[in-house]
Order: sequence, then structure tokens, then C-alpha cells
Amino acid sequence: MSQQRDTNRRVVLASRPHGVPTDANFRFERQYVPTPADGEILLRTIYLSLDPYMRGRMSDAPSYVPPYEVGETIGAGTVAIVEQSNHPDYQAGDWVVSENGWQDYALSNGRGLFKLQGPVLKHPSWALGLLGMTGFTAYMGLLDIGRPQAGETVVVAAATGAVGSVVGQIARLKGCHVIGIAGGAEKCRYAEEVLGFDACLDHHYDDLGEKLKRYCPDGIDVYFESVGGKVFNAVLPLMNTKGRIPVCGLIADYNSTELPNGTDHLPLFQGAILRKRLHVQGFIITQDYAHRFDEFFHQMSQWVAEERLVFREDVIDDLDNAPQTFIGMLEGKNFGKVIIRVATDKPGHE
Amino acid sequence: MSQQRDTNRRVVLASRPHGVPTDANFRFERQYVPTPADGEILLRTIYLSLDPYMRGRMSDAPSYVPPYEVGETIGAGTVAIVEQSNHPDYQAGDWVVSENGWQDYALSNGRGLFKLQGPVLKHPSWALGLLGMTGFTAYMGLLDIGRPQAGETVVVAAATGAVGSVVGQIARLKGCHVIGIAGGAEKCRYAEEVLGFDACLDHHYDDLGEKLKRYCPDGIDVYFESVGGKVFNAVLPLMNTKGRIPVCGLIADYNSTELPNGTDHLPLFQGAILRKRLHVQGFIITQDYAHRFDEFFHQMSQWVAEERLVFREDVIDDLDNAPQTFIGMLEGKNFGKVIIRVATDKPGHE
Repeated sequence: MSQQRDTNRRVVLASRPHGVPTDANFRFERQYVPTPADGEILLRTIYLSLDPYMRGRMSDAPSYVPPYEVGETIGAGTVAIVEQSNHPDYQAGDWVVSENGWQDYALSNGRGLFKLQGPVLKHPSWALGLLGMTGFTAYMGLLDIGRPQAGETVVVAAATGAVGSVVGQIARLKGCHVIGIAGGAEKCRYAEEVLGFDACLDHHYDDLGEKLKRYCPDGIDVYFESVGGKVFNAVLPLMNTKGRIPVCGLIADYNSTELPNGTDHLPLFQGAILRKRLHVQGFIITQDYAHRFDEFFHQMSQWVAEERLVFREDVIDDLDNAPQTFIGMLEGKNFGKVIIRVATDKPGHE
Repeated sequence: MSQQRDTNRRVVLASRPHGVPTDANFRFERQYVPTPADGEILLRTIYLSLDPYMRGRMSDAPSYVPPYEVGETIGAGTVAIVEQSNHPDYQAGDWVVSENGWQDYALSNGRGLFKLQGPVLKHPSWALGLLGMTGFTAYMGLLDIGRPQAGETVVVAAATGAVGSVVGQIARLKGCHVIGIAGGAEKCRYAEEVLGFDACLDHHYDDLGEKLKRYCPDGIDVYFESVGGKVFNAVLPLMNTKGRIPVCGLIADYNSTELPNGTDHLPLFQGAILRKRLHVQGFIITQDYAHRFDEFFHQMSQWVAEERLVFREDVIDDLDNAPQTFIGMLEGKNFGKVIIRVATDKPGHE
């Protein structure tokens, strides 16, 4: 069903997933739409960002961000419209990036909001992707940790995803040889033909390592890691001396409930770090780079204006579909940045 | 037997070790002492440095330094005296740091030599340790990659070794809480009482992880890695967010011939890198930091002059003992920087 004027639908975490999340971990609730007090504004969610890191917050293991609380609205970045304002800096109709979470309406005192103005209003949802959190992750991870030089080889996992697609395009702008890894022939073709990657390999290949070696004849200088698992295992032997590995995610492991048995590959990784003098660094964009957002936004807006970047969204209508869309995203079913269109931008119910 | 005036003893790599090196991997040979041509000098080895990295060079697996060749003199840093000189910059009696390898005499054209002058001549062998390669490794790895801040907790593996002992002392000079890990009660006592570590734990403890946790109540900010294996496994869960791990060695793995069976700990390490935003970096001092040697030498010489640093050597007489001493070092039998005293500093045979 669609957004209503007088009812706030919200999705709360019903229970913590063990392994792959299921519908039972999510619960829909309805409330009255709250009324803004003095100094507050009422925000109406238009676009909701679904991102793999949310799986981590559904667990209560120690992590880089505090876990979601069971029974509470699931947190998330959103693009919203100001419905009512009792705040001097905002007026009804303003577009903002906010943290409404998985719900139709939220109150805000203005703190942490980012007002959308100018060209970004042509694609407001891009403020959650190309010009928002995932684009920022791609930009800083690649340029600050990966530090690619023209002529170097950059390998990008999840190459058509919200982060990987931008990493690869920026690496191309920097003059690098860019090889993507993605799930399925259609995504690979898209990475090569639309995103401009030099090549893109399907991670389903049994001989991924061999194929990768053929496409990276000079080895790999930068591996942008968001996946882990077998993709990492294929990449590691090809890393060059002084290679860099920015780590922004490990989606292959998010639903794991225990460590795999068999061979312990830890000494292999440690040995590669030593012998190849690798620089491996994890980062969380919002915590490590908030002070450089303006630099990112300015540079990326310029590239967008020059039409040097392509950005694909996988837009799913209706909040009702958020849980299934989220579950599918962890399996790689999405194609591009996952956005739930919670409502159109017309005020009130449609 | 001792050094002769007319004979060059040398130790060549007879075969590549598989696992733990044995006597059979080494062969002693004798030659005439070579005569320096015009522009050359004849060097006589006084001190020979034995270091764990040499184990890597005895294998022919791809590594950060080229492997030793079978049948060739084993390479190594040495402190030597100029016996004869046909080179304008050197004269007989000069002390130099050179790369003579495991032998009594070597020719040089002067390239890559470092002349010892001033206070370091009080302890010429320190030019292989505290003021040489191992001290330089400790200094740059800790300060450039580890970047310890006053009040932070620094954990040092192989705490009484050539590198670890210096890492811990510099960390103390920088105002850090310093916990060492070493093999055996005697080494631990030495680290605490002589080197000034806040505490030092025996890696033989079954409950090393528990003990480490008790001694690092605020977690670990910097782990200086030279060991790997179970010490690393004890440290990893205690690493703090934004922790740093400089990796200069993995002695626990050097004699391994295959990956261990059982649980694959790789995802655990990858997950920690991501969630804790760790910075893990391997480095090779001679290749990554040669341009900063003067800075290191100046600062360390000053600390030495101020008697703020202690340095222990494990000096073994005679080149004949080099193979067994090397094999023992890989098992942790040494106590301090391993130096073979190939000869006294009196010219000719003793």
C-alpha cells in the first residue's frame, strides 16, 4: 500500500537474524503521524537507501556502528521533503537528506540534515548514492587509501553496485586499467559497455583466478574490497608489491554464522602483507572522512555536470517491499544502487 | 677454527631447506683471499648479522627480496675492516658496514658501504643492530606506520629480540603503555626490569589471550608484528578501533611447509580490519625507508648518547657456528640481537 497523510508506517527489527535474514525478522507497525514541536520539522520520506552495512547493525556483535535495537525502527539514510516546519532554517517543500529510517515520517530538530539545492535536485535520490554515502565511500576509499596512479591496475569487486560502479569510473578517470568482478553476464556486459571498465569477470567462473590473471598481466595495484570470500582469494595472489587494499565491506561474510572449516588461509594473507608490503585498511566513510565531504561533493558534482559519470539505480516502489528487497540485495539480486521509493514527491497520499 | 690471513672461509647454501633448516643445507668452502683491483678494497669481516628474514631468502618462493642462489655465499650485513685499499675514499683500518655475507673476506668497489665514525665505534656491532637494520626497522615501523600517541597501548611481539626490544623502548619514550610478549620467564623479566616495559607475557601461556586482556585494559592501539601465529591470534580480538599493525616479520611461519588445517581464520581477520578500521601494513626497511636513514641514525644516536636505550646482543664466536646459531634463532633460542663474531679487530689471524 502507499503512503498516507495521517498514518506513519514503520518497519521495526522484530528479531535479530541468524544467518540469512527472513521476513520474520521484520515487523510493520502503524502510528499516527507525529506533530512537530517548536523548533522541529516534520519530514516525509521519499527515497529510502538500503545498503549492505545494515546487515551488520542487525546483529549485536561488536561492530563499527551500534546495533539496531530490537523493536525500534530500522535506521537508514533517506531523502525527504519538509512537510511542516517550526524551524527557522527550513520551510515546507524543502528537500533534505536525513536519517528517517524505514518509515514514512520522522521529526527532526534540523541537526544532521543536508539541504538539497541546485543541480542535485534533478536526481534527488542520487544524494543517497552517487553524491551521497556510497559515492563518498568510493571516492575516499579509492583516492585516499587506494591512491591509484595512471597506468596502474585497479580491481573492483561488486563492480556494478553502488560503490563499485563509482570506484571503477573514478579509476578510469585517473587513467588506470580497471577490471571489475560482478555476478552474471548481464552485469559484466554493463560494466564494460556502459561504465567503461576495461573488462569485467563473472565471479561464478570456476577459474576466476586464472581469468583474472589473464586480464591483469601486470598484476593488481589496488583492490577495492567490499566482498571478501572467494573473490578476495582470487585477487590476493595477483597483488603487486606495495599494493593497496581499501576495505569498505565484506558482503560475502555478512550472513555467515561461523568460520569455515578446512584450510586456515590466515597465514597466506599475513604472508602476502609482509612479502608484498601491502597496505590494507578498513574504513567507515561517515566516521573517517566526514571532514572531507565538501571536497568530494564539489569534485563529483563537477564530474556529473561534465557527464563523465554514469549511475544506475535499482528503484523499488513502496516501503512494503523493503524487507524482501534488502534480503535479495545481500544475495546480489539488485543491479545498481538499491533505493526504495517510499512515495512520490506529491504531498500527502497519492 | 678462527680467521686466517690467507684463506677465505665461506658458507654457501648447499640446498634449499624444506621446513626447519638443517646442517645439510649449509656447506663450508675455502678459497684464497682475493686481491683488490684498481678502485677496489679488500674487506675483512669482523661481525656478521644473522636475522630471521634470511630464512625467506633460502626458499625460492616469490618474496620481497630475491632468493639466495644455491652454491653461492649466503648474503648478510657485516661490520668489516678495510684490509687493503685501492680506492681513494678508504684506507686500511677503516671500519665499514658492508654486505660481505657469511665469509671472512670480500671485495668491494665502495658502493653501498657505510663508514663508521664517531661514537658508534665504541660498539661497532651496533651498526648491525640498534643503529643499523634492526633498529631502523623498529624505529620506522613504530613511528611511521604505528604512529603511537602518548597514553596509547603498544604490544610488541618478540619483545627481547633485536627489533622488539627497540620498538618497546621507543614506545616508552613516546609515553605509551607497553606490553611485551616473549618466550620464557627470563626474557620476560628482562623486558620488564631492564628494557622498562610495563609488563611482558610469556607466549607459552595457554591463556595468553586472557592474560593479555588483563594487561591491556584499554585494548591495543598498536601491535608491532614480527611473529604471527598464536601471538597474533591472541592480539587480534583486543585491537582497538583505528588500531595500527606494522608487519616486519612472521617468524612463526617461516619454517611452515603448508597451511594449517582446521578453522579458516581469514574471515576473522578481514572482519576485524573492516569493523575496527585497522591499518595493517607490511614493510621492508631497506626498500621502503632508505631515504630516512639519516633521520633515524641522528635521533637514535642522540638517545644512545643520553643513555635512554639499552641494547642486548647475543654474540657467538666463529663463523663455524653460524648455521647452528641461525637454526636456533628461528626457534627463539637467542636472547637479543644475534651476532657472529667472525674475528677480533686485530689484523690477520689471531
